[in-house]
Amino acid sequence: MADRVYFDWNATAPLRPQAEAALRRALKLTGNPSSVHAEGRAARHAIEEARRQVATLVGAEPANVIFTSGGTEANALVLRPEIQVGSDRGFDVVVISDIEHPSVLCGGAFPANRVMRFGVSESGVADLDHLRAQLDGCVSRGMRPLVSLMAANNETGVLQPVTDAAEIVHAAGGLLHVDAIQAPGRLRLDLRELNADFLTLSGHKIGAPAGVGALIRRDRGLHFPNPPIRGGGQERGLRAGTENVAGIVAMGTAAEAARNELATEPARLLALREALIAGLRQCSPSGIVIGEDAPRLPNTVLFAVPGWRAETALMALDLEGLAASAGSACSSGKVARSHVLTAMRVPARFADAAIRISFGYATTTNDIERLVSAWKNVVRTLPKAKREIAA
Amino acid sequence: MADRVYFDWNATAPLRPQAEAALRRALKLTGNPSSVHAEGRAARHAIEEARRQVATLVGAEPANVIFTSGGTEANALVLRPEIQVGSDRGFDVVVISDIEHPSVLCGGAFPANRVMRFGVSESGVADLDHLRAQLDGCVSRGMRPLVSLMAANNETGVLQPVTDAAEIVHAAGGLLHVDAIQAPGRLRLDLRELNADFLTLSGHKIGAPAGVGALIRRDRGLHFPNPPIRGGGQERGLRAGTENVAGIVAMGTAAEAARNELATEPARLLALREALIAGLRQCSPSGIVIGEDAPRLPNTVLFAVPGWRAETALMALDLEGLAASAGSACSSGKVARSHVLTAMRVPARFADAAIRISFGYATTTNDIERLVSAWKNVVRTLPKAKREIAA
Repeated sequence: MADRVYFDWNATAPLRPQAEAALRRALKLTGNPSSVHAEGRAARHAIEEARRQVATLVGAEPANVIFTSGGTEANALVLRPEIQVGSDRGFDVVVISDIEHPSVLCGGAFPANRVMRFGVSESGVADLDHLRAQLDGCVSRGMRPLVSLMAANNETGVLQPVTDAAEIVHAAGGLLHVDAIQAPGRLRLDLRELNADFLTLSGHKIGAPAGVGALIRRDRGLHFPNPPIRGGGQERGLRAGTENVAGIVAMGTAAEAARNELATEPARLLALREALIAGLRQCSPSGIVIGEDAPRLPNTVLFAVPGWRAETALMALDLEGLAASAGSACSSGKVARSHVLTAMRVPARFADAAIRISFGYATTTNDIERLVSAWKNVVRTLPKAKREIAA
Repeated sequence: MADRVYFDWNATAPLRPQAEAALRRALKLTGNPSSVHAEGRAARHAIEEARRQVATLVGAEPANVIFTSGGTEANALVLRPEIQVGSDRGFDVVVISDIEHPSVLCGGAFPANRVMRFGVSESGVADLDHLRAQLDGCVSRGMRPLVSLMAANNETGVLQPVTDAAEIVHAAGGLLHVDAIQAPGRLRLDLRELNADFLTLSGHKIGAPAGVGALIRRDRGLHFPNPPIRGGGQERGLRAGTENVAGIVAMGTAAEAARNELATEPARLLALREALIAGLRQCSPSGIVIGEDAPRLPNTVLFAVPGWRAETALMALDLEGLAASAGSACSSGKVARSHVLTAMRVPARFADAAIRISFGYATTTNDIERLVSAWKNVVRTLPKAKREIAA
């Protein structure tokens, strides 16, 4: 795919060179990490080093990092009524924001009538008054809530008030899970500062390959009596199955790289984002940045030109050599109106036109210029796109 | 790890060169397979090619291959009461052999009082009379059984009478799941010939990296209404989460390689196995091959010298540059008496001494000679090991 430029990092990020090098080394470790011979011990050692790297990224203890096959599995592992703090009775209800990823929206192992929701503002920020009201309802009925609020939305990039939410949740006797998949390397992420109880990370969003992720818990007192994938004693009995050694090692290396660039990369990305927005606006004066009033990830722009059909514009961009998206890539390519934009009450003429441009560490000023220039070409085909909408 | 020889293939097999090459190519596919741009379509295409390769290995339709993060997850996915044939009511009980892998032994999502067991002979072959009696009990109580019987045991290599079991299970109105993780490339494996309803495969046992596996169903009428990992529409809605593209591609390539060598490799492995057994016997005349009376995998020898302590001998072999095991590697390296040998009523003096030697496509006659020669050295240290037992 020579000459193409990739602007869909929130769907999956390119493999980091450091992660690829680490992965290649790890592929030479033949041993099963549960074996006691030298090959097994070497594989075990590599996993424990990666566990330390991932823990450092979020300020957790290594023993509290549970490697999974990805963010979706990590969310499925944590959204379970039987999770216990010490020896208590578990959770009665899960309370989730309207803009969560589908793997959270499905409510995990909670039955459908034990899933409550809270909304967001028109800017896409979680409505904490609504959360508080929902939790008041739980408390008055004696129901213990597990709450899930993402760190940053994958479609809009809008940052969520996680620390404030944690205070409300804890006051209601609940626990807070934060799907932080879009955050690493883009913003500072510290489990203690966030005051979250669980954090989900995904390898392939930070420069490791897909197929690895982690659920991180605040402390060991948070216990899973009956995890869904059982059998072996791996991951302290919380997640059985021979570990994805190479993927875990790559994730550890990617986590270290993401952490190392935190001093410089967010500011660089922010400058790219602002240049991109200025360029898009010049071509499309009627376009809007969705969530513009809210603090957002520095790598994400959700831009909508009223009257466009996103799919038509994306196909035109694809032919120009540019990969962008109409929102989340997580629903098997089906085109349906975004639940995030619906929750934000974005009018249909914008929601159906919204194009997500997301980028990362490998993106250059040149790439942004190339995108703006391709956008100009697409704008020229706009009358045709408009006819397709009318048809 | 120069100069080491690896004899623990049943715990994890070395990466096949073809699989590694395919994996490296796949790592360059940046797209999320659910994305509609060119990068996403290329990743999707690679997955579908791998799906075809895995389906071909076991004579299944590609649409019936569900990729998972490994064999343990595949077993957790299938061992669920709510699995339906068409629109029926699901399963009341799971009936499993005493020698299954821990990920099956745990009973999956069936409550503990809905897990039934059936035994094996002293040779380690499933006792189908016991299975039939258990199923008669189910039928008489109006309970519909899901049965799980592995294709070949990971510790002894003993092949199981899957086709005969299928007839008994179907006559009782049940379905048969076969954990076939140890079979590919070592014996012919055809879903239709076996007459099984579900099959579990693991990538890292056939030369792909750990972190990928598959559950294969006989036909699409076998439906999972409420899979444990939900959210996205991946794997026909049966297993959400961005696919482990590189792992899946490597597994497809490994499956193709395993199938291609089926005409020659089992016979070659069998010759190595018989040479190994002869060599071990010459050094240790009192040693026995566990399961010797039964048909076994051509790559596995479970050898026990009465009075030895397996751990001591394994440490000695490890120092000689040889990796072998005391049985399954799946339980986090803890040394406990094997449930398989207990089920076979193997006396403690053999069970505590049993050393599993397993090998594969890369193993040469030289490697076997090296092992036999190392064994001679270990035998010389035997008096010391004996003292340790007495201590």
